[in-house]
Amino acid sequence: MDSTFVVGIDVGGQTSKLGVVDTEGNVLAQTVIRTDTYTEVEPYIAELAEAVKKIIAEAGVEGKVKGIGVGAPNGNYYTGTIEGAVNLTWGGDGVVEFAKLLSEAVGGLPVALTNDASAAAVGEMKYGAARGMKDFIMITLGTGVGSGIVIGGNVVYGHDGFAGELGHVCVERTDGRQCNCGKKGCLETYASATGVARTAYEWLEKTDEPSVLRNLDKIASKDVYEAAKAGDSLALRIFDFTGEILGRTFADFIAFSSPEAIVLFGGLARAKEFLLEPIEKAMNENVLPLWRNKVKIVFSQLKESDAAILGASALAWDL
Amino acid sequence: MDSTFVVGIDVGGQTSKLGVVDTEGNVLAQTVIRTDTYTEVEPYIAELAEAVKKIIAEAGVEGKVKGIGVGAPNGNYYTGTIEGAVNLTWGGDGVVEFAKLLSEAVGGLPVALTNDASAAAVGEMKYGAARGMKDFIMITLGTGVGSGIVIGGNVVYGHDGFAGELGHVCVERTDGRQCNCGKKGCLETYASATGVARTAYEWLEKTDEPSVLRNLDKIASKDVYEAAKAGDSLALRIFDFTGEILGRTFADFIAFSSPEAIVLFGGLARAKEFLLEPIEKAMNENVLPLWRNKVKIVFSQLKESDAAILGASALAWDL
Repeated sequence: MDSTFVVGIDVGGQTSKLGVVDTEGNVLAQTVIRTDTYTEVEPYIAELAEAVKKIIAEAGVEGKVKGIGVGAPNGNYYTGTIEGAVNLTWGGDGVVEFAKLLSEAVGGLPVALTNDASAAAVGEMKYGAARGMKDFIMITLGTGVGSGIVIGGNVVYGHDGFAGELGHVCVERTDGRQCNCGKKGCLETYASATGVARTAYEWLEKTDEPSVLRNLDKIASKDVYEAAKAGDSLALRIFDFTGEILGRTFADFIAFSSPEAIVLFGGLARAKEFLLEPIEKAMNENVLPLWRNKVKIVFSQLKESDAAILGASALAWDL
Repeated sequence: MDSTFVVGIDVGGQTSKLGVVDTEGNVLAQTVIRTDTYTEVEPYIAELAEAVKKIIAEAGVEGKVKGIGVGAPNGNYYTGTIEGAVNLTWGGDGVVEFAKLLSEAVGGLPVALTNDASAAAVGEMKYGAARGMKDFIMITLGTGVGSGIVIGGNVVYGHDGFAGELGHVCVERTDGRQCNCGKKGCLETYASATGVARTAYEWLEKTDEPSVLRNLDKIASKDVYEAAKAGDSLALRIFDFTGEILGRTFADFIAFSSPEAIVLFGGLARAKEFLLEPIEKAMNENVLPLWRNKVKIVFSQLKESDAAILGASALAWDL
């Protein structure tokens, strides 16, 4: 086993990150390609396969790669397909035979695929903040909100391979925000990077409250974070609001699987200094007394790209 | 193994049902005692132990009983304790060392204990509507709302043994009904037998709409069911409302574990004719498109007392 390697690929809405990983979790070579410049999957797969070959050559491990693990939005572990991934420009409503297409394009190497957040959860369990934990929920706060649920040390795939879509639980029944998935009031319309920006636009329009955010043409969650760091009170309240929604929703997740911890990961999780307190407050106010002040909120310790690559690569060891 | 037997006990808020079960799931002898006539656990345990000895004698299997399995509200599989069970008169806020106390009282027979709904889920998986299923959620609609979650063929106990408290997810953030647990807006304040009665009282007070329920001094969910069967339009709308809350909440449960089915069980589940349609409608309207019209709503096929006794007894085989 010492002389075998795997490739981990994290397929994101904008970019795809990939790396060659050894048995100890070292990333020997890595690269990034665009995901969103294609409207058809075939040319994307062709470019991805080239990138895989390139990093294998770069790492000098030709002929020693056991397989490829992929984390992708709406990825199905059982079938190797991506289904109805609205955040992928080539995902559409249909079924993309991702694992099969990629395997063919790289000369037959076996490919295992799962939901991107589940892959991140595996990475976090093997190499990150969830080491030693058997029951935790990974929440990825990126463009959307994803989740990877681990129970008894195993990722929950569910009956059909699609379990863990916690970004799409309803947090606002009345006049909830329109979600890309077609529903209204989904968690990810409030508590993702785009959700934070939507809150900023909404609140700026509703009031005349002064805020440095008013000076910007276009607001991203990063701008809200910078404003909060500079003490902007509107920006600070946006994080309070976001954290409160996350916290009370986590209380319901806890009632489901009673995890040891909820692990936060992704771009928005960098705003830990503003999110942790409102999350913990709302979570403990809304959870059953038996869990009050008992469930840890943990922020990922892994570099974002590494966790996703490592988590995806971990799948390939079992191929 | 052919000549060994187990005892299953279902501890409910009002009564406790117990039976002697053989390896094939036949209940050889059974009885019922009151749960709610005690404010202390010791005299209750003493009466329960007597009842256990009585049915063992009645079944003629003295000396051949392998152990006792117990399903109880807030029962903890890992520790054998019942913690903070507000629906048990002797439960209180504290920790009841139930398995230990009962084992001592019956002369040292081993005792395994779990949450009552988890026990029912095991019964349903072994003998009932969930036979052959590996991923399903059991929802018990009784005085309260309980849940037993099965993933990959295993009951989910979580980090601390208390997983599966889906009766206490929040379904109404604004002016939600006060729950026994101390929180507001819990599922069980709407979708339990008591929740249905609360809805009836509320709606009768809010309007002047004629209804046969107005003639009653005290309304139970059974009365609402009878009224609905007689075509009472208020009673029918109460079931629509209850089913809608259940259905949209189930949509969020599906996002968690992607079950093959949700199995309904308990007194209120007898109102299948009025609940099934609104549940399915709301569930399919609120679930991600990928699960639309795919998750089955199944009503328990077991006699209520049998499922609970059988489910609890199943725990004892593993002792």
